[in-house]
Amino acid sequence: MSLEKFSKETTLAMRKKLIGHSCRLFFSEDPVKIMRARGQYLYDEQGRRYLDCISNVHHVGHCHPAITQAAAVQMDLLNTNTRFLHDHIIHYADRLAATLPDKLGVFYFVNSGSEANDLALRLARQYTQHNDVIVLDHAYHGHLTSLIDISPYKFRKLGPQKEWVHVAPLPDTYRGKYRNSDPDPGQAYADTVKDLILEVHKKGHKIAAFFAESLPSVGGQIILPEGYCAKVAEYVHAAGGVFVADEVQVGFGRVGSHFWGFQLQGKDFCPDIVTMGKPMGNGHPLACVVTTQEIAQAFTDNGVEYFNTFGGNPVSCAIGLAVLDVIEEEDLRGNACLIGGHLKQLLLQLQKKHAIIGDVRGAGLFLGLELVKDGAQQTPATEEAAKLVKRLKEELIIVSTDGPWENVIKFKPPMCFSIQDAELVAEKIDTFLSGITDSVERKGT
Amino acid sequence: MSLEKFSKETTLAMRKKLIGHSCRLFFSEDPVKIMRARGQYLYDEQGRRYLDCISNVHHVGHCHPAITQAAAVQMDLLNTNTRFLHDHIIHYADRLAATLPDKLGVFYFVNSGSEANDLALRLARQYTQHNDVIVLDHAYHGHLTSLIDISPYKFRKLGPQKEWVHVAPLPDTYRGKYRNSDPDPGQAYADTVKDLILEVHKKGHKIAAFFAESLPSVGGQIILPEGYCAKVAEYVHAAGGVFVADEVQVGFGRVGSHFWGFQLQGKDFCPDIVTMGKPMGNGHPLACVVTTQEIAQAFTDNGVEYFNTFGGNPVSCAIGLAVLDVIEEEDLRGNACLIGGHLKQLLLQLQKKHAIIGDVRGAGLFLGLELVKDGAQQTPATEEAAKLVKRLKEELIIVSTDGPWENVIKFKPPMCFSIQDAELVAEKIDTFLSGITDSVERKGT
Repeated sequence: MSLEKFSKETTLAMRKKLIGHSCRLFFSEDPVKIMRARGQYLYDEQGRRYLDCISNVHHVGHCHPAITQAAAVQMDLLNTNTRFLHDHIIHYADRLAATLPDKLGVFYFVNSGSEANDLALRLARQYTQHNDVIVLDHAYHGHLTSLIDISPYKFRKLGPQKEWVHVAPLPDTYRGKYRNSDPDPGQAYADTVKDLILEVHKKGHKIAAFFAESLPSVGGQIILPEGYCAKVAEYVHAAGGVFVADEVQVGFGRVGSHFWGFQLQGKDFCPDIVTMGKPMGNGHPLACVVTTQEIAQAFTDNGVEYFNTFGGNPVSCAIGLAVLDVIEEEDLRGNACLIGGHLKQLLLQLQKKHAIIGDVRGAGLFLGLELVKDGAQQTPATEEAAKLVKRLKEELIIVSTDGPWENVIKFKPPMCFSIQDAELVAEKIDTFLSGITDSVERKGT
Repeated sequence: MSLEKFSKETTLAMRKKLIGHSCRLFFSEDPVKIMRARGQYLYDEQGRRYLDCISNVHHVGHCHPAITQAAAVQMDLLNTNTRFLHDHIIHYADRLAATLPDKLGVFYFVNSGSEANDLALRLARQYTQHNDVIVLDHAYHGHLTSLIDISPYKFRKLGPQKEWVHVAPLPDTYRGKYRNSDPDPGQAYADTVKDLILEVHKKGHKIAAFFAESLPSVGGQIILPEGYCAKVAEYVHAAGGVFVADEVQVGFGRVGSHFWGFQLQGKDFCPDIVTMGKPMGNGHPLACVVTTQEIAQAFTDNGVEYFNTFGGNPVSCAIGLAVLDVIEEEDLRGNACLIGGHLKQLLLQLQKKHAIIGDVRGAGLFLGLELVKDGAQQTPATEEAAKLVKRLKEELIIVSTDGPWENVIKFKPPMCFSIQDAELVAEKIDTFLSGITDSVERKGT
């Protein structure tokens, strides 16, 4: 029995009429209509099963029964707001606090990563009494007015760059200014931030915050070089600013070895503000800002209430708690290490075989496969990446691209991804790249 | 059996430690811990039942089983994002479109009223290519950076007022510049906007949007005077701007006679953008912006994707659809007319008896009771209003205050509010006000 209310054709026609076209579809030439999902699999209206390699939001797996159950029980019991006392919000904050350094212990619950980053900006400005923000090139921090301002990925198209926003180079050690071959790329990239702060000060401006994703995603699945964050934090603190770690895409154990992406930067580093979102509620609109007592106190001292209608409601917190339980009970961090590690090895093997693979990078189930036309120039193989995405879709595998040239295939699947899934993806990529090479060789003959 | 995980004392202590103090509690001196809820009733940890007169978010009643059921079924089936085709989002948009004038037919789904108002601001600016915004005095449009900028209720405390924001007088016909006794207060207040536009133009600025709640809430449960919106829209359009109606607090049939608050202004008036939120998902984080084809097209033409991770997901839309069904099946608009009308009559009767009641106003289940120390000067009876709120809490009735002087008791209960509830509230208010009068008289003797 079909679950469709409308035929796919009608769905598409009505969507074109009723939904703003700025809301784009995957595979716009031949979009996919998904009817149901489970774990790492999506099923379309014809019952075809797609392997989902990109839904980091559905962190513990699509439609996990424990999450649905927790939501339904709490929805039946109570869903009010934070102006009333409730156990779930504090229990949840306490559980999250246990995953974080002691310094980070005051929570604000909101509904989206964008709301979280906007609040982080407010907290930083209130605490520092400064206004300016340093961000990494190609960064994306959200769809709100204030966040488009600090997202080069957006404001380079929508412009103009605000006078209070300053862009530091993306610490991309594959194709950036400083590379893995440099003696200390972490220090070298941190020095670019130090220099930028000097420039800002020369203009008479003052730094409120340095914003960065712990692993820059839209920028191209970037792993920040060793020592970078601790050094940047030192420079930013010296300028009176705070360090905001945006964990919206990458938090909650995705990197496997740690619960938070920023922890890859070692124990010497702790951000002043951390924002969380996408995977937090496994699809439920749930996000959060955590900060220090001092920053929270400065925000309280402005004397103005912060009220977020839905933020931290009992249902959202029950769902958040259930997500934490599943991560632990199913050892999804262990799985991210194991499967992510295996997939990375498979992709590294493919790199030896296919010159078009310029770089394989990542941690846990956050991986990037960068395609280049030639190894020396590192010319982005944008068209080939698009073709690979299209071809994998025909093979019922959903991936997509990131990076300034859309030449980085990203993997950030539900954390229940399996060895078989990893091997299937690697096999299909191998087949496609072999086809390209053959075709290139044939053209060359 | 108690459902408590922690004692109330522990809950409060942990909350103080873990949650930012800017997130305030109702009745901060003696906060309420709510464990469960049903319909218009909240139950605390001791099983005491409170009558809820203010949760407009829980529009069709707390924990309505039809909403829980719709959420659970869809959560078990699929919860992905708008980059895949799905029937619910278009079905829901189609159902909402049927409640709106034909002109308003392009939807963007988001997670909160704040996200909706921020997007409305982006749409207005993109379409008009102007920057400035006119808002009503005392207005509140959300907690985001961009919305604090256009909310006098917030920026008067957090300051400074931005140079692109212009504040028009609140059309309060009880205590404002023009009153019910004036021949045409709607025209008179609209003229203040006309004058403001002239001032803005003199500064060389241009109007992107006029933002107003269809019934200003934080401003003091205000009913806009007849003819106001149509005239303002005329002036704003002549200046090249658009009219944004914020229905976040008051939409979805609360006013009873109409589905939308702006429809109280007659058929001659249609906003260019409408934002919706709080009641939309009965507590689930769900909100929306609807606009015209022309404005949506201008937004599309900027060439930049608008992607909202959770916005318009199948679970949110299933919940939104279920809310619409319950409003219809239980004739909650009819109930708002009947019960709201009865409560208003009871309050008007109390006004005849108690001089402290300066004004009784509202539509449907959106009512305000304004307390004043003296009828001639209309000195706000702020302390008395606070005492009434506290006293009603002791009587297990939850109300709160609004308005610039916090002297307006607001009623915006779940729409299943009953005749008995209305009579109980009126009776308890009568008792309290009689006590005050006695006390005043005793003091006088």
